[in-house]
Amino acid sequence: MLSDFLAEARARCGEAHVSEGAAIEPRYLQPARYAAGQAAALALPGSRDEAADVIRLALRHGLRVVPQGAHTGLVRAGTPDDASGDLLLSTERLRQVFELDLLDRTLRVSSGFKLSDINERLAAHGLWFPVDLSADPSIGGMVAHNTGGTRMLRYGDVRANTLALEVVLAEPAGQVLRLGQGLQKDNSAMALGQLFIGSSGSLGLITEVTIKLAPLPRQRAVALVAPASTGEVFPLYADVMQRWGGLVSAFEGISRAALEAGLHGQDLARWFDGQLPDYAMLIELSSELPAEQLALNELLQGWLEGEFESGRVRDAVLDADEAIWGLRHRISEGLRVRGKVIGLDLSLPRRHFMAFRERGAAWLATHFPQVELADFGHLGDGGMHFNMVWPLSAGALSAGQELTLREGLYALVAELGGSISAEHGVGPQLQAAYRAHWGRVEPGVLDWARRVQLVWDPHGRMGQVDWGP
Amino acid sequence: MLSDFLAEARARCGEAHVSEGAAIEPRYLQPARYAAGQAAALALPGSRDEAADVIRLALRHGLRVVPQGAHTGLVRAGTPDDASGDLLLSTERLRQVFELDLLDRTLRVSSGFKLSDINERLAAHGLWFPVDLSADPSIGGMVAHNTGGTRMLRYGDVRANTLALEVVLAEPAGQVLRLGQGLQKDNSAMALGQLFIGSSGSLGLITEVTIKLAPLPRQRAVALVAPASTGEVFPLYADVMQRWGGLVSAFEGISRAALEAGLHGQDLARWFDGQLPDYAMLIELSSELPAEQLALNELLQGWLEGEFESGRVRDAVLDADEAIWGLRHRISEGLRVRGKVIGLDLSLPRRHFMAFRERGAAWLATHFPQVELADFGHLGDGGMHFNMVWPLSAGALSAGQELTLREGLYALVAELGGSISAEHGVGPQLQAAYRAHWGRVEPGVLDWARRVQLVWDPHGRMGQVDWGP
Repeated sequence: MLSDFLAEARARCGEAHVSEGAAIEPRYLQPARYAAGQAAALALPGSRDEAADVIRLALRHGLRVVPQGAHTGLVRAGTPDDASGDLLLSTERLRQVFELDLLDRTLRVSSGFKLSDINERLAAHGLWFPVDLSADPSIGGMVAHNTGGTRMLRYGDVRANTLALEVVLAEPAGQVLRLGQGLQKDNSAMALGQLFIGSSGSLGLITEVTIKLAPLPRQRAVALVAPASTGEVFPLYADVMQRWGGLVSAFEGISRAALEAGLHGQDLARWFDGQLPDYAMLIELSSELPAEQLALNELLQGWLEGEFESGRVRDAVLDADEAIWGLRHRISEGLRVRGKVIGLDLSLPRRHFMAFRERGAAWLATHFPQVELADFGHLGDGGMHFNMVWPLSAGALSAGQELTLREGLYALVAELGGSISAEHGVGPQLQAAYRAHWGRVEPGVLDWARRVQLVWDPHGRMGQVDWGP
Repeated sequence: MLSDFLAEARARCGEAHVSEGAAIEPRYLQPARYAAGQAAALALPGSRDEAADVIRLALRHGLRVVPQGAHTGLVRAGTPDDASGDLLLSTERLRQVFELDLLDRTLRVSSGFKLSDINERLAAHGLWFPVDLSADPSIGGMVAHNTGGTRMLRYGDVRANTLALEVVLAEPAGQVLRLGQGLQKDNSAMALGQLFIGSSGSLGLITEVTIKLAPLPRQRAVALVAPASTGEVFPLYADVMQRWGGLVSAFEGISRAALEAGLHGQDLARWFDGQLPDYAMLIELSSELPAEQLALNELLQGWLEGEFESGRVRDAVLDADEAIWGLRHRISEGLRVRGKVIGLDLSLPRRHFMAFRERGAAWLATHFPQVELADFGHLGDGGMHFNMVWPLSAGALSAGQELTLREGLYALVAELGGSISAEHGVGPQLQAAYRAHWGRVEPGVLDWARRVQLVWDPHGRMGQVDWGP
């Protein structure tokens, strides 16, 4: 009975931290994109042990547990959908542990801390957690979705920066398990913790993580570069990587439509003399060395001058680091002004990246001529936010139309060896596409994922993703 | 029946590639350390499909399958031990796939290629696989053991550099499964492939991997540094990392006894004027930039001069990159001259690293005064090869003595939050220590590892590690 659960959970967590039905604050049910969800109850446990007890109570009373961090996810994994059967478990109050080890440059931290909280506290020590995003998720949510972000080229994704996890399991209900000792180098166990990274709240609740930190760079040099043609983009990329390797901290690609969205409301004349290119690259170098020892701006500028003379680069904006990143981070917002955004979070082998752009655009022109393509993203990692705008003038986009559109493009992604979720992870929003993709690419993956999921959660009570076929 | 297996396996792989009992070439049974093993048969399949068929045949005939790469492992995972029940499956002839993608800087490669083969072929493209070891293992063996090596500080371990795997499974016998599409950025599936990294040949046979490559550095600067005292080592380390971050490609620690072993037979006067320090640090900076753009040697030298004046550094050897690395790589060999080497592959939180050295040495002095400690290793990663020499003069080391010695030190490792296998992985040689360690640290890990192992290999027919309690 729900009422029994509520009474027991309130006794454990306090009245103020358990709410039900219509009394649940809307922000817990309204995701960043998509329609609002619903839940039978919301619990905000104030400690790891409270969380374990809440899970025990929920499972005993037949509720499914949907973990939620800062609710910034883009695949609906943290947004519950069952008004009678879902307990929404927010990790917002899991903030007890914040243990900084300056010598190991690691942080052991409760999963409820937000990325911005963490980086603010680290700045005083000249450190940061270098998985750099536009959003401000909880660290637990970042681990549950293995986020990548704009500096992955240099620092890797969350997986590459996670050293240990603490999880609360569904079976036996409420069991606390620590996976890893937080060491930089350790090969003394099966890699069970890896399963939880990118598990989208399935398998168990992440209550604490130990992450690697990086020294804050002492300088950055940023350029927004217009190549002579899109055919030059990857040769330029290969040249930059071979030349500067570990100094390259971002290499983003931005289509003309995305540039326009990012510059919405600004004076275009400041950018490329008002002649926006069809495609631009955002290139960032960074280093721990100060500019007196390594002049990154001069390095970047010298290279650009050479490429300008060789004809591979048409124009570039320099000495405007903040304005360039500002443009980049305003793209999503700028697109929303123009209509309904359909965002595909893809990655492709670099050799097929431009082919996908061209074939995807051609497919759209045939099947959805009203859609405007405005792709951008982490080109250096093969990542592409293949974002499209369904203009306000085209009327409402039906669920069937969106499904047809997504399916057509996802089939092309599979054909070219790409990923349908480069960095956002898997949630209800991608459940069907996930099955279809692996059904095309390697169906055995679905069978094995189901077997492993059943080990951790035999009754399907944790999270909303069914990893099986 | 073994004879039936042999006949069928020979029909599939060819007479020359299946041998039995005494006809097995000794190198397949003699590991780099420890006594020789034994096997009922050895098969060298010449392709992924032959390997799958061999596994099917072996399991049908009741044999256990022990995968072996280049047989350089240090935990006996690839050395079989059952003269009637073990099929030794060597991946030596799995060399069909070598697909280099220069734009993605990835290599899809059959598991039988050796690290040296791979790096020789890559050098022409200015690339390398940066997991850098003294030994020359197969790439499949490296993945199965998640090797770390001397440049892990900059490039990460095998896990951080593996993008996809192909495995052949035990149940259903011979099933081929591809885990991952080889993309730099992909969050579209459960991280099943991660389980196989560091699995020591259990769970399944690795037949192919896709790995990340790095540009070859254009310069290195190396110094062998004598600190004023061991108390200065980690402050110097922290300073170096905060100062140079991504440029630091190695930071090794070498005890005086290990220095002497590495310099065995050389003119000591060339090193620190013959006054070897109690402890030395090998520091390497490297960069893709040429020295004209970034003078690494000057950077390192300038810093050392400052630290010399401040009194934290007593002396340093510079401009002798090859001689310094030569010393480092000769340590293990130099120790073997002095007696029987007992090697512990540890890592520790950096704050406990020196405490472990001191307490470990004190424990040895009390319980095994005849043992000479000669530790060295990847200090920057918290790694320590806590190697000891049982001198020839002390007579034979009994199995019971070695066990007591290992157990005493492993208990101290657990107390200080360390790992009993930093980079060598787990195999029969560490099976008991593995159980004891996790029994002390987090017993639940053993239960969960068993459950996961049973999913992949329900009848315990793959590899030699039992991950359970």
